[in-house]
Amino acid sequence: MSSIGVPLGGQSMQLPDADYKLTNDKTKDQAASKRCGSIRLSSEEELVLKSFRVLIADLCQQFGGGHPGGAMGIAAIGVALWKYVMRYAPHDPDWINRDRFVLSNGHTCLFQYCFLHLTGYKTMTFEQLKSYHSDRTDSLCPGHPEIEHEGIEVTTAGPLGQGIANAVGLAMASKHLAASFNRPGFNVVSDHIWCMVGDACLQEGVGLEAISFAGHMRLNNLTLIYDNNQITCDGPVSLTNTEDINAKMRACGWNVVEIADGCWDVGAITQALEASRRSPLPTFVNCHTVIGVDTAVAGDAVAHGAALGSETVISLKRLYGFDPEQRYIIPDTVRDFFSGLPSQGESLVAEWNQTLQRYSQAFPDLAEEYARRMEGDLQDNWESLIPDAFPSTPTPTRAASGLVFHPLAERLDQFLVGTADLAPSVYMSWKSKEDFEPPCLGTGSYAGRFIHYGVREHAMAAISNGLAAYHPGIFIPVTSSFFMFYLYAAPAVRMGALQHLQIIHAATHDSIGMGEDGPTHQPIELAALYRAMPNLLYIRPGDSEETAGAWIEAIRARHTSSIISTSRHALPQLTGLAKRTGVAKGAYILEEVTGTADLTLIGVGAELNLAISVAAELRSSHDLKVRTVSFPCQQLFEAQPRRYQREVLQRQSGVPVVVIEAYAANGWERYADAAVCMSSNRFGKSLPGPKAYEYFGFDVPSIVARVRGYLEDLRVDPDLKHDFVELTYAKTDG
Amino acid sequence: MSSIGVPLGGQSMQLPDADYKLTNDKTKDQAASKRCGSIRLSSEEELVLKSFRVLIADLCQQFGGGHPGGAMGIAAIGVALWKYVMRYAPHDPDWINRDRFVLSNGHTCLFQYCFLHLTGYKTMTFEQLKSYHSDRTDSLCPGHPEIEHEGIEVTTAGPLGQGIANAVGLAMASKHLAASFNRPGFNVVSDHIWCMVGDACLQEGVGLEAISFAGHMRLNNLTLIYDNNQITCDGPVSLTNTEDINAKMRACGWNVVEIADGCWDVGAITQALEASRRSPLPTFVNCHTVIGVDTAVAGDAVAHGAALGSETVISLKRLYGFDPEQRYIIPDTVRDFFSGLPSQGESLVAEWNQTLQRYSQAFPDLAEEYARRMEGDLQDNWESLIPDAFPSTPTPTRAASGLVFHPLAERLDQFLVGTADLAPSVYMSWKSKEDFEPPCLGTGSYAGRFIHYGVREHAMAAISNGLAAYHPGIFIPVTSSFFMFYLYAAPAVRMGALQHLQIIHAATHDSIGMGEDGPTHQPIELAALYRAMPNLLYIRPGDSEETAGAWIEAIRARHTSSIISTSRHALPQLTGLAKRTGVAKGAYILEEVTGTADLTLIGVGAELNLAISVAAELRSSHDLKVRTVSFPCQQLFEAQPRRYQREVLQRQSGVPVVVIEAYAANGWERYADAAVCMSSNRFGKSLPGPKAYEYFGFDVPSIVARVRGYLEDLRVDPDLKHDFVELTYAKTDG
Repeated sequence: MSSIGVPLGGQSMQLPDADYKLTNDKTKDQAASKRCGSIRLSSEEELVLKSFRVLIADLCQQFGGGHPGGAMGIAAIGVALWKYVMRYAPHDPDWINRDRFVLSNGHTCLFQYCFLHLTGYKTMTFEQLKSYHSDRTDSLCPGHPEIEHEGIEVTTAGPLGQGIANAVGLAMASKHLAASFNRPGFNVVSDHIWCMVGDACLQEGVGLEAISFAGHMRLNNLTLIYDNNQITCDGPVSLTNTEDINAKMRACGWNVVEIADGCWDVGAITQALEASRRSPLPTFVNCHTVIGVDTAVAGDAVAHGAALGSETVISLKRLYGFDPEQRYIIPDTVRDFFSGLPSQGESLVAEWNQTLQRYSQAFPDLAEEYARRMEGDLQDNWESLIPDAFPSTPTPTRAASGLVFHPLAERLDQFLVGTADLAPSVYMSWKSKEDFEPPCLGTGSYAGRFIHYGVREHAMAAISNGLAAYHPGIFIPVTSSFFMFYLYAAPAVRMGALQHLQIIHAATHDSIGMGEDGPTHQPIELAALYRAMPNLLYIRPGDSEETAGAWIEAIRARHTSSIISTSRHALPQLTGLAKRTGVAKGAYILEEVTGTADLTLIGVGAELNLAISVAAELRSSHDLKVRTVSFPCQQLFEAQPRRYQREVLQRQSGVPVVVIEAYAANGWERYADAAVCMSSNRFGKSLPGPKAYEYFGFDVPSIVARVRGYLEDLRVDPDLKHDFVELTYAKTDG
Repeated sequence: MSSIGVPLGGQSMQLPDADYKLTNDKTKDQAASKRCGSIRLSSEEELVLKSFRVLIADLCQQFGGGHPGGAMGIAAIGVALWKYVMRYAPHDPDWINRDRFVLSNGHTCLFQYCFLHLTGYKTMTFEQLKSYHSDRTDSLCPGHPEIEHEGIEVTTAGPLGQGIANAVGLAMASKHLAASFNRPGFNVVSDHIWCMVGDACLQEGVGLEAISFAGHMRLNNLTLIYDNNQITCDGPVSLTNTEDINAKMRACGWNVVEIADGCWDVGAITQALEASRRSPLPTFVNCHTVIGVDTAVAGDAVAHGAALGSETVISLKRLYGFDPEQRYIIPDTVRDFFSGLPSQGESLVAEWNQTLQRYSQAFPDLAEEYARRMEGDLQDNWESLIPDAFPSTPTPTRAASGLVFHPLAERLDQFLVGTADLAPSVYMSWKSKEDFEPPCLGTGSYAGRFIHYGVREHAMAAISNGLAAYHPGIFIPVTSSFFMFYLYAAPAVRMGALQHLQIIHAATHDSIGMGEDGPTHQPIELAALYRAMPNLLYIRPGDSEETAGAWIEAIRARHTSSIISTSRHALPQLTGLAKRTGVAKGAYILEEVTGTADLTLIGVGAELNLAISVAAELRSSHDLKVRTVSFPCQQLFEAQPRRYQREVLQRQSGVPVVVIEAYAANGWERYADAAVCMSSNRFGKSLPGPKAYEYFGFDVPSIVARVRGYLEDLRVDPDLKHDFVELTYAKTDG
């Protein structure tokens, strides 16, 4: 199906090949694109741009929806990238040294899908292109690019700005590998990262954080291409943004290039992009474009998120000399224009393979290591690096997290570990760590594996997604901050889980035990989000041993993200009770009774030890038979067979179950009848940790009294068994 | 207790009053502050600064914790603000025309507490100052400033950067009132907003979004004062940020002033701050300071978040000529320095009252309106503005939301309504709306009440907190975006709820019904967060009538934030069943049965109509007695008496309850035994809305089959009643 139609008047459009100066009055159509000054565009390229735009319009028209305008506006950028600038191999899409392309303004995805089709990606057939916005459940052309599909590096947008941070992560991954493996004369790692952004991406905080960070890191293997069409959904960008973006980018440490006519000037764009490979700084190419160029809605917000309408599509075809009756027209000339790219890609791969072979002879150890890393496997004995036992003294689980993780971080180069400016608090920096920093600053190198993300929680998580997306299994990014601040990072944590990326988030200072920093820091309700989030393990270990278990599960989950949620304050070691292997099942029995139990107590994380103490008190002073269960991870428990779940909880036998956790109870109703929890209608309080616990009734006498009260209430009103009961408590202030 | 101690050598510190040039070699102590060039500092001021720093050090030393370094570094800024620049009245802290001060770097709160004490705020006694980091549950000096306390405008930090956006909101509130009420010669509204920020606030995305927005809005009644100490927790800022902040701020449309010696140059700071009142742009005052100035840890990260240690405190006292044995020293000279401020404040208020009186004579109607607005009450008949009935045709609840809200927005000036660039989709812009824009752009005015926030969801919510915090009840900010993007905004939504601010978030495109934009847009798990968040109503109406109920509840909740969560797609009107008054109770019976029911079906929001249809089918084709319940808001239901809750759910009678909602089921376990829901281990899918519903089994035949299967399973295995069962379904791709 090389050509589905031919343009009318194709012959009359012959233009000189290069450096042809188009004038502004080429057409009298009011909506015609403005072509600024002298541009460089061959006749073939012009036909490609026109065919491309008509194709986009047709594809959106098909089901009456989609985002045509942006994709049409940036066609010339696509030609520059896929035809002239990017180094990639359409028939070897996962070639590790390929340039990576990220479409941060992901709603323009048809742009990418069409170029994947034209350049010869095998899975992107023409039929697939036509599945955009269709009912097909096997479509490779969803409404936004999805990482699962060939040629797509990361899932983007919708949540705008993420792509910028992802691209920064990809660029860091490449810098790190290059610093680790390249040797003079052997650039085994030499890919460049290209990221397309729209007006919106540059307004989003996560994008702005990442831009500032990339400038600091001197990521000159990164080029941001700005589709500057000055239109968003509400109308002109000037409604809400009148900043000087070029000056802002320069202030952030970027090289800035401006392209006056981003719609047509393929030559200038190509030159700017090529030059950006040699910049000492990351490059921002500000391309002035027109959304819905050459249509009746050119430069208008309505061109953004709806099909153009058949009238408008017909007019465009007429303007461009295409037969208005024909749809999905890809002229032979256009196909020919891209036809050499697969073989060109094969040559690039072959050349690189030769480099790799010479490298293997010159540096056999390094080459072996490189090959091993590319496989994505961890060394077999990684689990044995974790201490068998821990100090018996009370230890904060955040400190235990360090004891578990440091030997792993020392030995496993897969770990790229960072913090959002809480290095002294989160225990994630190991002794021999080197900082990931640009060499020019003299404080580290790109070979370093410890990343100071700054106070940029959201970008930290989004950049980590980029690190992990570079190549399957090659890195396990670790982020760290206070648990509460993972609400800042949540959109990116979600994107990691959605993309099946293994990111480990070391979240400390969970629960009200974090203390005097107060309710703004006390994560009462945040766990409810992460326990409901698909493909994410939220693990709250109760002591050092369980912390070992938490890390083991997080590392084993090669296609799942995890949050390891730890305490600020010291917790007693539950030696002989808590088991690292127990964590794998999400929940497990700590203490069993003989005969019929009166009560099952569930303890969680920093409050697990309270459950043990309360149970002991209920046994010794109140003659109750109390079972105890540790429940570090709901998601892992849900994955267990029902038989195991029933064995642990024993709700079928009618024994009441009470959970103890210093969070809102939401979600525990699945496993318990009542909760010693935070009230769901108030936040925490600024008090020293132990006092905060006491204030909300998280001490043994208070819990014992409330649990006994509950058992008595159950006796008096058996119907209470059908209500979930919150056993909350808060002192009156004063 | 005017003076608890006196400094040693006080006499020898007599310095000329003003324009005294201190030299750099004033002390040989290595840790002495650098004093750059010529500074303006009187001897009294110098004593104030020194006493202040010693006091901060003592207060942190008391309980061995807190954040001393930053507070010490910015003492001179405080003197400039509270002594010379700000217009406020310590004995009339809620005077409506006061200047507002926001401490975005809230961990330095002792800075603010001490100035509140020194300037005569009555509740901030010396005993209260000493309660910082204590066990006192009635402390007015929590670890971060809290809005509940006198002199505090907003609760800040911890979550950094929020304060910048809050200050932008305060400045917009002031601009709006000024544009609405001021008349030539009558500046009834003339307050200025001062916001202190640290290095971290300027790295956070929410701060960067707000800065860009404030520049666009030309908020020249806003001054940002940058405590540029170049230190964060990890160490020097240069580890992670080497941007040119002045150039960046200028690029964002700010006036920039630099203060070389922010530690001592009270004169220069005062001058810069005063000048900022006359700038045509918002002003950024970049004050170079030294964290922990003049101590052994000056300029070091350890000065940030821990007490200095007694040795260091003693050295500081020696250096400053204080008695090392004495603690909490506030010399009489220092008290005298501030003693005139209460009466000065009273004069300001009196003067303003006179203006107001003259204004009342000149513009009696406006003055009456102003007085009414300041009361914070809504007009009595607001509820009657809402339509009694709605079109009977299928209507998306987002459109119904517009039908309900537009007449309110037209008539109630309290509503300041904005969108994060989704005006065409969220139905929040009413016919006669005027845009809030700086007059110079020619597209609106500051009297406008519709705000184009740009693609800045997080700042939108944080700015709204500032709007609401300006004065109790004076505004009801409304934000709008797709529900999924409220994950971007979540930290600010939380801060609004925490501060008991009434913000209404109009969140559209909830559920997988939003369709082809795919899993990045489909909010599977987000409701779990908002249903667990204290003081927030998450309301999902099921048709137009319930949408009216949702708005009524959100508007009635004058001290609570709400999310009104609506559908993209058209929903049938459940006329005769759905009731706006039902929403008030969170859940209510739609259809009751006579005799014992076989099943209770709960329907929620966009899936409510499915519950009705499924119930009908189970009745007609399978002879089952099915009750139906509409459940738009868990939080409102939780507030009902248990008797009502049991009446609605009837779980005590053993009738199984199944909930239908296209979200992860987390949280429904409290009210149901099983859920027709999204699987908790996968995200949504990019398909047109109806197809997405079908794909995940949200159609009548599929639900009927699964509910019947569940009832059969219950019969076979009665123990199943103790398990919560997810009745999930997803087609195999292909």
